[in-house]
Amino acid sequence: MNAKERDRRRFLKEGVALAGLAMGAIRSANGQAPGSEQPGIRPGKFRAYGERSRFETAVRMQKSPGSSSSFAPLQDQMGIITPSALFFVQSVYSSGDDPLDIDPQQHRLLIHGMVDRPLTFTMDELKRLPSVSRIHFIECEGNSRFSIRGKNDAGVAETAQEIHGISGCSAWTGVLVSLLLREAGVQKGASWLIAEGAETNKMVRSIPLEKAMDDVIVAYGQNGEALRPENGYPVRLVVPGWDGNINIKWLRRIKVVDQPYMTHQESATRPSLRLDGKARWFQWEMGPKSVITRPSGGQRLPSRGFYEITGLAWSAGGAIRRVEVSTDGGRTYKDAQLQEPVLRKAFTQFTFPWNWNGEETVLQSRCTDERGDVQPTLAELGKIWGVTPEYWQATTNHINHFNPIFPWKVTREGSVHNALF
Amino acid sequence: MNAKERDRRRFLKEGVALAGLAMGAIRSANGQAPGSEQPGIRPGKFRAYGERSRFETAVRMQKSPGSSSSFAPLQDQMGIITPSALFFVQSVYSSGDDPLDIDPQQHRLLIHGMVDRPLTFTMDELKRLPSVSRIHFIECEGNSRFSIRGKNDAGVAETAQEIHGISGCSAWTGVLVSLLLREAGVQKGASWLIAEGAETNKMVRSIPLEKAMDDVIVAYGQNGEALRPENGYPVRLVVPGWDGNINIKWLRRIKVVDQPYMTHQESATRPSLRLDGKARWFQWEMGPKSVITRPSGGQRLPSRGFYEITGLAWSAGGAIRRVEVSTDGGRTYKDAQLQEPVLRKAFTQFTFPWNWNGEETVLQSRCTDERGDVQPTLAELGKIWGVTPEYWQATTNHINHFNPIFPWKVTREGSVHNALF
Repeated sequence: MNAKERDRRRFLKEGVALAGLAMGAIRSANGQAPGSEQPGIRPGKFRAYGERSRFETAVRMQKSPGSSSSFAPLQDQMGIITPSALFFVQSVYSSGDDPLDIDPQQHRLLIHGMVDRPLTFTMDELKRLPSVSRIHFIECEGNSRFSIRGKNDAGVAETAQEIHGISGCSAWTGVLVSLLLREAGVQKGASWLIAEGAETNKMVRSIPLEKAMDDVIVAYGQNGEALRPENGYPVRLVVPGWDGNINIKWLRRIKVVDQPYMTHQESATRPSLRLDGKARWFQWEMGPKSVITRPSGGQRLPSRGFYEITGLAWSAGGAIRRVEVSTDGGRTYKDAQLQEPVLRKAFTQFTFPWNWNGEETVLQSRCTDERGDVQPTLAELGKIWGVTPEYWQATTNHINHFNPIFPWKVTREGSVHNALF
Repeated sequence: MNAKERDRRRFLKEGVALAGLAMGAIRSANGQAPGSEQPGIRPGKFRAYGERSRFETAVRMQKSPGSSSSFAPLQDQMGIITPSALFFVQSVYSSGDDPLDIDPQQHRLLIHGMVDRPLTFTMDELKRLPSVSRIHFIECEGNSRFSIRGKNDAGVAETAQEIHGISGCSAWTGVLVSLLLREAGVQKGASWLIAEGAETNKMVRSIPLEKAMDDVIVAYGQNGEALRPENGYPVRLVVPGWDGNINIKWLRRIKVVDQPYMTHQESATRPSLRLDGKARWFQWEMGPKSVITRPSGGQRLPSRGFYEITGLAWSAGGAIRRVEVSTDGGRTYKDAQLQEPVLRKAFTQFTFPWNWNGEETVLQSRCTDERGDVQPTLAELGKIWGVTPEYWQATTNHINHFNPIFPWKVTREGSVHNALF
């Protein structure tokens, strides 16, 4: 019996023992069937393209009406796949997250610049090429910053959706950029790509050629069907593990060049300023980050007893190797169970059985990726940035790549709160 | 460099070389950007719960209006995840695939029969228990039979959707039945479960206890969110790898018993009669089966040149280990590339680069699972059933578990047809 199987059995055993605490309260008195009248059942209506039940109400949430940030309800997500209908939306250069409505028959993708053979593709032509389908997360570089009260932000957020909801994970289908570039013939001296979206004001980002040749996808599919309009229909870039907004939506042109272009998104808001006056430029990799999604801020535990703590972990550094959970505010940690499949640069779900004794406590998680990088505490992250903890709350800079260990406080009444500060 | 990596490189190399044939024809004349006017772009509208583009039109197809079989458009599926909105529907005991409309607050699940502690669960109680999220296929046991002209069927079908579309693969989230049964305390002598849905006429199936304790899930989630009504909202069974209709939807009761109940679905249509008068009872496992989804019946290849052949393979026997593709009607086979992730009892996508020379030919695939079971030819399957090839067309019996190698004929005009007979 290997370590993993041993872990599995231990968790199963503990899970069952602890589950008993909850089940004890809900045992049927006489073991009879629910009443034969079966209340709450009505005939429904078949739909050729299905919709969810009228009883399900989770939606993306805009921070303010018309704003360009729509947060996904991470606390409701089951497993590692974020449904396309609920995938977060950030559309910096469009109005209020309104997507473009593009006719795929008329859309073209151009590969040009320092190439031997410039190429133009229709969508049908792209779909004839060898394809890949891969599960990857995408996370906005500003995700999680609403866990603190930065001067630029409306206020501190409480829920997993408000704090961590500009992240998601889907199966992406499309053509590897490396294939397109090999066919176009990259010229000597080329070292960067400039990728451009079809918005009127253009989203443009610079991408090192080395990353593009590694694992970047020109994606037309999400979760088994075409991309949704809000997420770049008919075609977008997927740049696994990197800044959300480098994953250019409504992709129109890829230009091969010999230097980064220092576009608006790369010069105005992207650099992370440190207190010592230095800045971190072209810091693309997201994570390692882990977030407990249940229980999480805004939820309420109805009674003491058994709960399954569950959450998500991810890193640009590759696969998640370990997630530890603390139920005592970080004094002690125990290994959580990682749910299969554990994939590189993808959400990994973790679960941890917990028996709440009714006392106030703090729940938090920390993850380690395949490179050995460990999610830092807020104090450790401060040292990396060269700032004191107070900095985070006082700064007028945008805070990006913010991945400290996130604590949830559980009160004696069972309410759950953001406890980072 | 291991065999897998070598395969990957060989495919990449071949893929690129072959892709060039297609790309040659679509090279931009001058390498200039698509016109700056960008035709076909309109402003869209953000939706808090997203919908697909108005240009996407794939739908589930009912064999006849009001019938209880709705086939998924497999030929359009990207990767291994079948979108919930397009997942096939079979609702034997409801009208025309109309689902039940169940209020989850009022729904109850009962575990009773030969147990020490009968249990009743609300949905909220179920969701508090330790959960798993696993990617599994579900396939109707009658899938693919419309590839032949059985006397009971309306006619031979042509497309991947019409022939193979009562199958799908999703990420399912829920509680292992083994956990529920351990908590209920299974009594000595118990050996079967009877699972019952909430339809007025009840879908009831018998399941061996051994399978239930292995990997059966009481599932409330599909592809990251709640099940859709057509697929059993708020809770269903997922019985990995087994007969579609044993995966009871709208699950209401699980009774632990000491024998199978020989329900309507187990006595009337399930046994597969052989010519020698014998019948195969309780034959649950689906596959090994593989299907080329592109190119497939009803499609048309616009010109000679490069095409990526792609398809799906699955088996109740566990993970798919190998898929081979023939582009010459079965005279020769070559290994296809398996796309990651390759998961047990789940769809596995395969791809194969193909350069069509414009001549008539036949495309087909065969798969091998981790047990070494190989998808049979129609003649080999006939031997297993004790029948001649003519039997399949002449029988008035339902044909179930039909998994021969399926050929698609490509004509010189580029049209693709079902060529099993």
